[in-house]
Amino acid sequence: MGMANTIGGHIDFWYDLSSSYSYPAAMRIEGLAAEAGIAVNWRPFLLGPIFKAQGWDTSPFNLQPAKGRYMWRDLERICAGFGLEFRKPDPFPQWSLAAARMALTDIVTPVRPEFTKRVFLAQFAEGKRIEDTAILSAIAADLGLDGELAVTQLRRPEIKEKLRAETDEAQRLGLFGAPSFVTPDGEIFWGNDRLEAALSWAARLD
Amino acid sequence: MGMANTIGGHIDFWYDLSSSYSYPAAMRIEGLAAEAGIAVNWRPFLLGPIFKAQGWDTSPFNLQPAKGRYMWRDLERICAGFGLEFRKPDPFPQWSLAAARMALTDIVTPVRPEFTKRVFLAQFAEGKRIEDTAILSAIAADLGLDGELAVTQLRRPEIKEKLRAETDEAQRLGLFGAPSFVTPDGEIFWGNDRLEAALSWAARLD
Repeated sequence: MGMANTIGGHIDFWYDLSSSYSYPAAMRIEGLAAEAGIAVNWRPFLLGPIFKAQGWDTSPFNLQPAKGRYMWRDLERICAGFGLEFRKPDPFPQWSLAAARMALTDIVTPVRPEFTKRVFLAQFAEGKRIEDTAILSAIAADLGLDGELAVTQLRRPEIKEKLRAETDEAQRLGLFGAPSFVTPDGEIFWGNDRLEAALSWAARLD
Repeated sequence: MGMANTIGGHIDFWYDLSSSYSYPAAMRIEGLAAEAGIAVNWRPFLLGPIFKAQGWDTSPFNLQPAKGRYMWRDLERICAGFGLEFRKPDPFPQWSLAAARMALTDIVTPVRPEFTKRVFLAQFAEGKRIEDTAILSAIAADLGLDGELAVTQLRRPEIKEKLRAETDEAQRLGLFGAPSFVTPDGEIFWGNDRLEAALSWAARLD
């Protein structure tokens, strides 16, 4: 990173808006990245097509019941440890396509981190269903945006194409789960529990 | 834990002797547990039958190539961070049945932690194959035991039955991967990266 002395390092934060462990990662990353002097690129993508390419039609947490039971208890403990509210979504996983598209719209992009955190809170703390565009529109409005315009924009062909391209890029990078953190030298760190390691790695590149 | 003031807490450390992330866990647990004042029960079991019950005929790291590539790089970074030697085993996973049985024999049981660490080092640092009973016998001999007797004992019906019972117990507890740590109140912590959390949890029960 030749410009490190002027702009510091950065990290790509890849997340699916229905991913359970992406919730604590999204809530924690800004504070930790600021401490480490690392900028964060928030990159929503879809895990569904990546799972489908492996022959899975739902989350591995549903396909493997013992692992799923563990994940919910683990997530509950993790959220309690970080002082984050937690309420298991029903159904799980939720349909994150519309939310991911909205995150990529021109209107939402400037506040994508805040929008992302609100979507995760709605889903994992407030019992809301994020496939509902009325919920998404209300989140945008809460952030001072034109909620109806955000819904209109998410349906544009270029936004659909952008999400497809991001998901293709995630697959090309070798991502297989979320959250994943990718440093400028191409190192992948998978999981909320690797966030600190990813930021340390990025900081060492400065 | 009513006897906490006299004997302190304990934790069950469940591992498969071919499990990649069980290697750093085995090398780290004694020091961390001693600091936390927690005793460790070393409980080898077999992941194979648990994977087979899910329809898998090998490690998920082989079934999902992107996840497997990630795991090897992640493990390499983790070992470097802890100052542990690392060399990717070939083949992977190795056949851990004989090693697990030997760990449960009367002769090896008193030194099971040291035996376990030697088996992991042979496999993940020294390029050896742990299905080879000559390797296992040499490890036992290095620990001051009668290596041939250890090989004879691992073939006894009661040892085979003991390993089956331990694997059944792991499945009954809801374990689906290794390493897993189980506290006396039944909390499960899965993965080398949950070792510290498991010990903290156990210490709070004192």
